[in-house]
Amino acid sequence: MRHLEVALGERSYPIYIGRNLLDDPEIITRHITSRQVMIVTNETVSPLYLRKLEVALQKYSLEACVLPDSEIHKSMDSAMKIFDVLLKCKMSRGTHIIALGGGVIGDLTGFVAACYQRGIPFIQIPTTLLAQVDSSVGGKTAVNHPLGKNMIGAFYQPKCVIADTNTLLTLPEREFSSGLAEVIKYGLIRDPEFFEWLELNMDDLINQDLDKIGFCIERSCLNKAEVVSADERESGIRATLNLGHTFGHAVEIGMGYGEVLHGEAVAIGICLAADLSNRLGWLTDEDMARIVDLLKRARLPTTVPPTLGVNDFLEHMSIDKKNVEGQLRLILLEKIGRATLPMAVDQNQLVETLTAYGNN
Amino acid sequence: MRHLEVALGERSYPIYIGRNLLDDPEIITRHITSRQVMIVTNETVSPLYLRKLEVALQKYSLEACVLPDSEIHKSMDSAMKIFDVLLKCKMSRGTHIIALGGGVIGDLTGFVAACYQRGIPFIQIPTTLLAQVDSSVGGKTAVNHPLGKNMIGAFYQPKCVIADTNTLLTLPEREFSSGLAEVIKYGLIRDPEFFEWLELNMDDLINQDLDKIGFCIERSCLNKAEVVSADERESGIRATLNLGHTFGHAVEIGMGYGEVLHGEAVAIGICLAADLSNRLGWLTDEDMARIVDLLKRARLPTTVPPTLGVNDFLEHMSIDKKNVEGQLRLILLEKIGRATLPMAVDQNQLVETLTAYGNN
Repeated sequence: MRHLEVALGERSYPIYIGRNLLDDPEIITRHITSRQVMIVTNETVSPLYLRKLEVALQKYSLEACVLPDSEIHKSMDSAMKIFDVLLKCKMSRGTHIIALGGGVIGDLTGFVAACYQRGIPFIQIPTTLLAQVDSSVGGKTAVNHPLGKNMIGAFYQPKCVIADTNTLLTLPEREFSSGLAEVIKYGLIRDPEFFEWLELNMDDLINQDLDKIGFCIERSCLNKAEVVSADERESGIRATLNLGHTFGHAVEIGMGYGEVLHGEAVAIGICLAADLSNRLGWLTDEDMARIVDLLKRARLPTTVPPTLGVNDFLEHMSIDKKNVEGQLRLILLEKIGRATLPMAVDQNQLVETLTAYGNN
Repeated sequence: MRHLEVALGERSYPIYIGRNLLDDPEIITRHITSRQVMIVTNETVSPLYLRKLEVALQKYSLEACVLPDSEIHKSMDSAMKIFDVLLKCKMSRGTHIIALGGGVIGDLTGFVAACYQRGIPFIQIPTTLLAQVDSSVGGKTAVNHPLGKNMIGAFYQPKCVIADTNTLLTLPEREFSSGLAEVIKYGLIRDPEFFEWLELNMDDLINQDLDKIGFCIERSCLNKAEVVSADERESGIRATLNLGHTFGHAVEIGMGYGEVLHGEAVAIGICLAADLSNRLGWLTDEDMARIVDLLKRARLPTTVPPTLGVNDFLEHMSIDKKNVEGQLRLILLEKIGRATLPMAVDQNQLVETLTAYGNN
């Protein structure tokens, strides 16, 4: 088992990574101090892993809330369903709530944990690569609003993160690739060695080499933990984790939540950010090609969906948490392994990139 | 102008108390660092004070969201309406949001501020006595759930609190008395001198002596600020601020949100808590009588509404944030000026109190 720590003073917590972790109840129970426990999961994950978790936690007073799958359910309506169950079961302020699933379940459950009775302890058990390398770590919780992704949320850290890599064996190919987009992102923004390692080992990752995948999750989490420890509430460096995300959110909203997977949208967004960085004279043509090539080898899309035009992007990007007083700001790349802080971009150059990549 | 500080490290903030504060824009504008500002208020307060505030803030890019009045609108639906306006107006993460109104508007707006883009700055301009002495100070924000008051919320501190006592001149008598319940509470839980001062000066307060009211607000805020500074997230002493509130919440839920004012319900709750404390042999008959007498002089109810039975109380009190693993816990009084921490109570003695005060 690999083990690392997110250093945040009294809110520090461990991340455990490895095979068969769900078969070892002690890893979870050492972090539970209450009698009442609530598990939140979805209809895809529950037939696979809910029973196993319930057995591990049989000594507790246990409730489960099973939601429909997909990004479309990362909504306030879903949050209210969980609040309903918590209150109907008279769950008290000490109750531990466990997110068993991907990024949607983790973000949603974390938000509910942050708000229920003004905050109850929660535990992340991410079952997708994307959640294991990114969304379960760092305490960003949220639900979507029809006008913007993650617009309603809280910074709220879990008590621990348990990433059982066995769960990736049941993950659909497309979901696995979606997680690789965030993995590649870490290489791009701050870890050029890791980017090179990914270039060398992408085929093994795609072929489900769980040891290499374990390394890959650990290295991703190490990168994220360092950034989050330095800037928990995103007043500076943490924003670089959003490389490709402003474009990506526009793709997700423009296509309708759930049509394009989050990592797929981020992959497209990384291409657009790289293209803009290239036009600004920072990123070389060669590095641009390396990025697109690695994303393709991860089976990720690198072009904009045909139904999304330049104006769709401009509209959807006008609502973004990094924007300041209506001015769009983007994370760009100085080179592979080095990202900029959010920066205002020239509208003409942005339109050039969107036009070159886009559909009208 | 009276001025005090809530000491919470880097989250410390000032409370300003006095007449005509809304006529001095600088008091507010010194705390606003953004161009975008959103005011949230209700249909009762907006005709009285919204225009004045808009004039004071005319140099900003200003939006207002006017909600219906009453506790029934302290709901997630109302919060979503504010999120809708924030997003439609493309309000960015730097936007300052101002709560102009009573406790409902303050709690609701604070919750929206805590969650919008994971947290934006907010300012409290309380216009009721209850909000000025209690709910605007201390960072408890929340909305109600049909099964429990304040069950969904966050600890989130404002940038400042501006209590213009002139606004109390337009406050309905019943609302003013509701605020006095929380004022009397501070005397009961930790400030016996203040309780005596209230006994001497209650008639002047009722007769709208704004100087004495100003003192009364300052003394209440001082008490609250000390408690909150010592225990921001209610792991101990802060719970004493909830004297009468567990019974009170049961009255509010049992009667339907908005039927009984919050302070009225708290007044009834204080009587029940005092009665139980008396049965436990702590509070003397004489002190019990002093408490009921002072509440009556503040024109507050001191008996349980006839439609609420013992079982209604037991049911509604079974969901309370102070409960631990299903065990009901209450704040009681050792004497006037000294409250207990939340304590488990004997069910039989509780039923005795409820029966003596109740209706079946």
